[in-house]
Amino acid sequence: MSSSASSDPLSLIPNFPDEDPSTYPPIQPGGSLILAWQVHNKRVILVGGGNVAATRLVHLLNADALITLIAPPAGLHPETAYRIKTHGSRITYIPRHFQPSDLGDVFSISLVLTAIDDPVASTEIYTLCKKLKIPVNVADVPPECDFYFGSVHRDGPLQIMVSTNGNGPKLAAMIRRKVADSLPKDTGEAIVKVGELRKKLRGIAPGKGEGGQEDGVDEPGLRDLGI
Amino acid sequence: MSSSASSDPLSLIPNFPDEDPSTYPPIQPGGSLILAWQVHNKRVILVGGGNVAATRLVHLLNADALITLIAPPAGLHPETAYRIKTHGSRITYIPRHFQPSDLGDVFSISLVLTAIDDPVASTEIYTLCKKLKIPVNVADVPPECDFYFGSVHRDGPLQIMVSTNGNGPKLAAMIRRKVADSLPKDTGEAIVKVGELRKKLRGIAPGKGEGGQEDGVDEPGLRDLGI
Repeated sequence: MSSSASSDPLSLIPNFPDEDPSTYPPIQPGGSLILAWQVHNKRVILVGGGNVAATRLVHLLNADALITLIAPPAGLHPETAYRIKTHGSRITYIPRHFQPSDLGDVFSISLVLTAIDDPVASTEIYTLCKKLKIPVNVADVPPECDFYFGSVHRDGPLQIMVSTNGNGPKLAAMIRRKVADSLPKDTGEAIVKVGELRKKLRGIAPGKGEGGQEDGVDEPGLRDLGI
Repeated sequence: MSSSASSDPLSLIPNFPDEDPSTYPPIQPGGSLILAWQVHNKRVILVGGGNVAATRLVHLLNADALITLIAPPAGLHPETAYRIKTHGSRITYIPRHFQPSDLGDVFSISLVLTAIDDPVASTEIYTLCKKLKIPVNVADVPPECDFYFGSVHRDGPLQIMVSTNGNGPKLAAMIRRKVADSLPKDTGEAIVKVGELRKKLRGIAPGKGEGGQEDGVDEPGLRDLGI
């Protein structure tokens, strides 16, 4: 190996004379990295109790999170109050404003969401989260968000999330409804059945599992079964 | 305030005699928290250079990430090699196996993805990420994933992600294609125009902004304009 080769990693890359780059997906910059975050039985801190917090609670309860909701009782939206009362096993309610010590047990906290009408307090929470390396979403302040929420259609195990990358929330909700209407009514049930069949087949001919991706490119062991 | 009230936070919650819980969205447990992660100009470490890594690169480049790809040259998939060569400004290529020191600059790293055929090395990387509080996805090992990938349709600013929550990756890709076919061809362009209009309107009548959520419940200042 020549010294120029060792100094330039690109020179180490093999050549593929038969490759046809026109078959590769085109790159479209400017999007988000859309991910299915796993918060099953993981702790999420939600600061605020208004109508945005109520929407966040639906997302979090649908994903089986353990939620600590911090907000003074006087500011609770009726839906937030209802969720606290009906989901006591999932939601720990702390009836006061946020305090930095709420993030004390840092290794147990997966995400922090704030939805309060106080930009100064929001920025303080954001800064603290960055210091503690906890991913955070400050509602209404995109620069203080590691991640955004979108409009989600749900049908059993099926989740379809629509994002316009900030161009039009109402349009996102409209597209979500259109998408939902385009799918057969029993899609969720059909997916459950396919999942059960895949589990059985994996028992017969075990592959590596579906492994945290659904790109459709990596179903070893099941690839040839057409599922 | 009685002592029982102060000991039970639920007793502090106001009553809402007019509330109608039947209008609230039903909770459907067992899902994921689907999020649009913001990695624009943020560092993501990708360990591995095979076909799964090639798919990850498309997601990451579409989201404007700065990528450090760590993999020996001999194992590179042609598409991975092509991306490294054509996206030199986005991808830093390290032509060797992963070393713990690759995660040394911990505050600069947003996410770690591994896609290697070595369960022992994968678990070591996972354990290190947990210790350093870096969110991680180990391909093919769901218990070692903070988040999963899904099948994503892209049309300009529009992104639609389909997850079957592990029940059927190929079914997810099928549903993604069906969803894409159900939308008008110029949907992406229409969203761009709505986004431009919203920006102009915000200049005239500034609200709080779209604020990292697209639930369609929080468009203050623009709500009455029907956009």
